[in-house]
Amino acid sequence: MTKPQMSVAELERFLAMEFPQAFHPGSGLTIEKAWFGGCRVRQAYSEKFIRPGGTISGPTMMMLADFALYVAVLAAIGPVPLAVTTNFNINFLRKPTQRDIVAEARVLKLGKRLAVLEVNIFSEDITEPVAHVTATYSIPPMD
Amino acid sequence: MTKPQMSVAELERFLAMEFPQAFHPGSGLTIEKAWFGGCRVRQAYSEKFIRPGGTISGPTMMMLADFALYVAVLAAIGPVPLAVTTNFNINFLRKPTQRDIVAEARVLKLGKRLAVLEVNIFSEDITEPVAHVTATYSIPPMD
Amino acid sequence: MTKPQMSVAELERFLAMEFPQAFHPGSGLTIEKAWFGGCRVRQAYSEKFIRPGGTISGPTMMMLADFALYVAVLAAIGPVPLAVTTNFNINFLRKPTQRDIVAEARVLKLGKRLAVLEVNIFSEDITEPVAHVTATYSIPPMD
Amino acid sequence: MTKPQMSVAELERFLAMEFPQAFHPGSGLTIEKAWFGGCRVRQAYSEKFIRPGGTISGPTMMMLADFALYVAVLAAIGPVPLAVTTNFNINFLRKPTQRDIVAEARVLKLGKRLAVLEVNIFSEDITEPVAHVTATYSIPPMD
Repeated sequence: MTKPQMSVAELERFLAMEFPQAFHPGSGLTIEKAWFGGCRVRQAYSEKFIRPGGTISGPTMMMLADFALYVAVLAAIGPVPLAVTTNFNINFLRKPTQRDIVAEARVLKLGKRLAVLEVNIFSEDITEPVAHVTATYSIPPMD
Repeated sequence: MTKPQMSVAELERFLAMEFPQAFHPGSGLTIEKAWFGGCRVRQAYSEKFIRPGGTISGPTMMMLADFALYVAVLAAIGPVPLAVTTNFNINFLRKPTQRDIVAEARVLKLGKRLAVLEVNIFSEDITEPVAHVTATYSIPPMD
Repeated sequence: MTKPQMSVAELERFLAMEFPQAFHPGSGLTIEKAWFGGCRVRQAYSEKFIRPGGTISGPTMMMLADFALYVAVLAAIGPVPLAVTTNFNINFLRKPTQRDIVAEARVLKLGKRLAVLEVNIFSEDITEPVAHVTATYSIPPMD
Repeated sequence: MTKPQMSVAELERFLAMEFPQAFHPGSGLTIEKAWFGGCRVRQAYSEKFIRPGGTISGPTMMMLADFALYVAVLAAIGPVPLAVTTNFNINFLRKPTQRDIVAEARVLKLGKRLAVLEVNIFSEDITEPVAHVTATYSIPPMD
């Protein structure tokens, strides 16, 4: 596990400043771990995420994957507020239960212009992933 | 434009009952139009959707696309609460502005077990789409 | 229909020179039309494409979509041999019949670094598309 | 590594009979390993796969991934000739070299109606994958 460009504390500070709408004390989002090439993040359970059948909504999982992707990109390339997702593909595999969901992101390829990542999303109490994401980030040219 | 299985009023009633967490008076979501094979829905602008650079967040667009997909499936097959997304692929094309976003969904294929749909997302004041989605729904067996 | 950067004759000449392995007299591939922002290409039917149930194989459709994408990119930006696909997503919608297949590509977004395109694939005798593709191309920096 | 529903020898016999157009002595395709939940397959290098810059073409990688997916599905559910791909998403990560390419497929989810799989594609002499695929298979109802 190589040292990330930003520590968890630095990531939290950066996100609270740059993304207050998404990452704020009431969001239930936490960064559990970050390394060069990946991270693990968590969304605390909330009733507002529930859909018929007692499952967590698809958009909740997408939102957490999006957060994991961004944290993993920051951990790999440092504070670049304008890196943007260009493609995001999610397969829903199993029904999450009414618990926290955890996402583990991993960089598949880090190029100069593009990064490709993979995210597995887990329900706190199920071993197999509930969803799998691949995504591409466009990295702005450095000056 | 063929008649949908459910009218806009029926869709609204069904969603308010089955998905109160997603579709409620404060959500800013409205169904503008529904026909057999598609729909147009809208997310009213809110500051909470904003990201650095003054753009609407990716998860906001994904959430609206997810809503459009579900409305289009309901309009095509009627009230089936347990139809679930299995795959969702989004390409982000342009930066949305600080305005409402509108999503137009279209059924590409309606099979017995699977439906494949396409969604174009627009910023209220830009002609070209800001994002494009394809997605697959699994339709539960009818008894 | 705006004038393309390269005419059909120029495209054919370029492809025969740069991609002789894919585009050669025996390949059965033809470019029917090209404009700024899109093209229509055709794969002549051959028994070697057939799979159980008398349908055209998935890889045959993917290969034709890949060809359509490249032709549409060339028609939009001119002869750039090193533009490369970074993401390719295909939904198979209906079974093609034992006939030619035709692909129509359309540029959804043409940026400086990335182009996003859509392809619809048709069996010669079916109105509805048999497959739908979205793909991203990385465009090398111009000097 | 759990025992597959079909051994490598059984898979080869089945494929040679059902897919002679794709799997035949001159195809250069071999099944190296199969287990319950995955497989490893190989495409022998051939000049006809080469594209400008000395790289293996995208459609060659897609074809190999498609083959790996089908072998992994057969190894998991047994000889079901009519299982069909419904979605296939590929990210191209690195340029393959002029060598054999190897694909490792892994089942992410095996349901009654759908299977979701992941494939990593490798150039024989590069450690990191050259491409990553996720795909969905529709499994016909068993009688």
